[in-house]
Amino acid sequence: MTDMHWLFEQVAAPDETARAAAVARQNELTKPPGSLGRLETIATDFAAWQGDAKPELARIGLAVFAADHGVAARGVSAFPQAVTAQMVANFAAGGAAVAVLAREAGAEMTVVNLGTVAPTDTVPGVLNHHLGPGTADFTQASAMDRATLADALSTGAAQVDAGLSLFIGGEMGIANTTSAAAVFAALAGLDGAATVGRGTGVDDAGLANKQAAVDAGLARHGARWQDAPPPEAALAALECVGGFEIAALTGAFVAAAQRGVPVLVDGFISSVAALAAVRLNPGVADWLMFGHRSAEAGHARVLDALGATPILDLDMRLGEGSGAMTAVATIRAALAVHAKMATFTDAGVANSA
Amino acid sequence: MTDMHWLFEQVAAPDETARAAAVARQNELTKPPGSLGRLETIATDFAAWQGDAKPELARIGLAVFAADHGVAARGVSAFPQAVTAQMVANFAAGGAAVAVLAREAGAEMTVVNLGTVAPTDTVPGVLNHHLGPGTADFTQASAMDRATLADALSTGAAQVDAGLSLFIGGEMGIANTTSAAAVFAALAGLDGAATVGRGTGVDDAGLANKQAAVDAGLARHGARWQDAPPPEAALAALECVGGFEIAALTGAFVAAAQRGVPVLVDGFISSVAALAAVRLNPGVADWLMFGHRSAEAGHARVLDALGATPILDLDMRLGEGSGAMTAVATIRAALAVHAKMATFTDAGVANSA
Repeated sequence: MTDMHWLFEQVAAPDETARAAAVARQNELTKPPGSLGRLETIATDFAAWQGDAKPELARIGLAVFAADHGVAARGVSAFPQAVTAQMVANFAAGGAAVAVLAREAGAEMTVVNLGTVAPTDTVPGVLNHHLGPGTADFTQASAMDRATLADALSTGAAQVDAGLSLFIGGEMGIANTTSAAAVFAALAGLDGAATVGRGTGVDDAGLANKQAAVDAGLARHGARWQDAPPPEAALAALECVGGFEIAALTGAFVAAAQRGVPVLVDGFISSVAALAAVRLNPGVADWLMFGHRSAEAGHARVLDALGATPILDLDMRLGEGSGAMTAVATIRAALAVHAKMATFTDAGVANSA
Repeated sequence: MTDMHWLFEQVAAPDETARAAAVARQNELTKPPGSLGRLETIATDFAAWQGDAKPELARIGLAVFAADHGVAARGVSAFPQAVTAQMVANFAAGGAAVAVLAREAGAEMTVVNLGTVAPTDTVPGVLNHHLGPGTADFTQASAMDRATLADALSTGAAQVDAGLSLFIGGEMGIANTTSAAAVFAALAGLDGAATVGRGTGVDDAGLANKQAAVDAGLARHGARWQDAPPPEAALAALECVGGFEIAALTGAFVAAAQRGVPVLVDGFISSVAALAAVRLNPGVADWLMFGHRSAEAGHARVLDALGATPILDLDMRLGEGSGAMTAVATIRAALAVHAKMATFTDAGVANSA
């Protein structure tokens, strides 16, 4: 499964006629024009994505991708590596934050284990697609080979049903903020100091370890992406310093856009995957909405690189898709007022004109 | 109904034992401590308010208070004054933004007309408590007399059922951002330039009219609050430059705190009413949560005066309670993860310790 040509297949542009019709409707609703702020643009974005002036959030899909990371050996996480597989079971059992939020939001959740150190083959409700016992330590070797990267990208893509109204990708993997920081640094020409944060909560020594690990990865593999065109640079970064779950997110985001399914991006790791997806296929950018601004240090820079303004800013830094899933309720509110408010004519209210 | 002693009756402190128990629970849930950010503090605040380590949002009450403003004669609004009564009917019929949002959020809505130029006596679903055909133009006279103020405060208080889990106050009144700016200026020692914004969308000339009206009101009535103690200054400001609906909000907020019902404050006008409530009775401050940061220019200053950090920041500027009602879904998410997530022990997940 090394064919990656699908990544470059064209993404359709959103429907600007439907967007214009939705904007016209917003201006007829019983409120001053623009006074609902972001609720208005959320509704008109969904109109363009669905090709319908009155869009609906009928089916929300969440795929949580999990995998382990060889770079955990560098002491970059506050939690032991065994936690990745334990949390996979917790997702499947419904006890993790994003699982609770997905139930509240009425989302369909899939849990995909792409390769943890501890197996989850016997855990009910987990889709196991084992690419290895985590990646290799990218300070010593490539995180994965090109064929494995292709498999991870395709596995992510396979989780996106074309019938969804919205796709959210989540992730879990001890040490994956380190891997995401390295991918971001590679894509943006930055270093460990600019991209590394405290993740699940490392102390100062852990933070120094993370920065050193990222810088070591960039030094070892940098020649692979330095002079490459953007799509090849993105593939090289994912292959050399990425993670199975980060690659799966990237593949899912590309596939979602190709299938006309908008993506609500979560925090730091998901946003790095979204940046990689846009480098692979620039049309993906038109199908992304951002759920929240994470407290993880590097997130603001990734959002800047993507020109993104997230819906929420709640100091969350858990990952899993939890920030994006929290934002779903605000999207529901936006679509409800758009569809259900009275117009000036309906209500017999005088407009300013 | 001129007795106002009730305003100064003691507000109980939130239950810090329940808050501590909720904080302890947060630290046992399967996530790094603090990683859910604001979702954690929302849950622990509600624990303290309800005296229960696992709080629930069982009943949400929304009261939308409407009234007209004599200062509308100064050309301070982009909409004609007739719109206030028309929007009262639109609230009651369910077509206004906050009415749609209240249905989505499962809130109980009451619409109270305290005095519009056009009557709404025959409109089904409206509670009419007519204090006059709007206030007097505060650039020429006191907006209302002290007895009318007392009536407005009590009418607001009467809308707060002690059995609510959360109270939201909304407002509607053409020209009421001008009145709120004047009240805020009086309470904070500011002028029209510092407190006036574009409201529903006035042009530059309208903005200049608003600032001049506020400054004229401050010049005419300033002696009434300048050297008064905070509670009397707040009453004088509401009487001289306030509005029936702003006073009703103030009374409702004081009564909610006294009855152990937390308040989710909306935007600029509601926040000014909350500031007045805190000046009347400082204990009210412990029972306030802020739904959103409004795009209305003066709101950031009011929030600073209250030391408040709102949940949402969505460039909304409609009022009606719409921003607060949009934030309810985030509160629901916060309480759901708090109550329903697995603990490290439940899920067999290794903690960092």
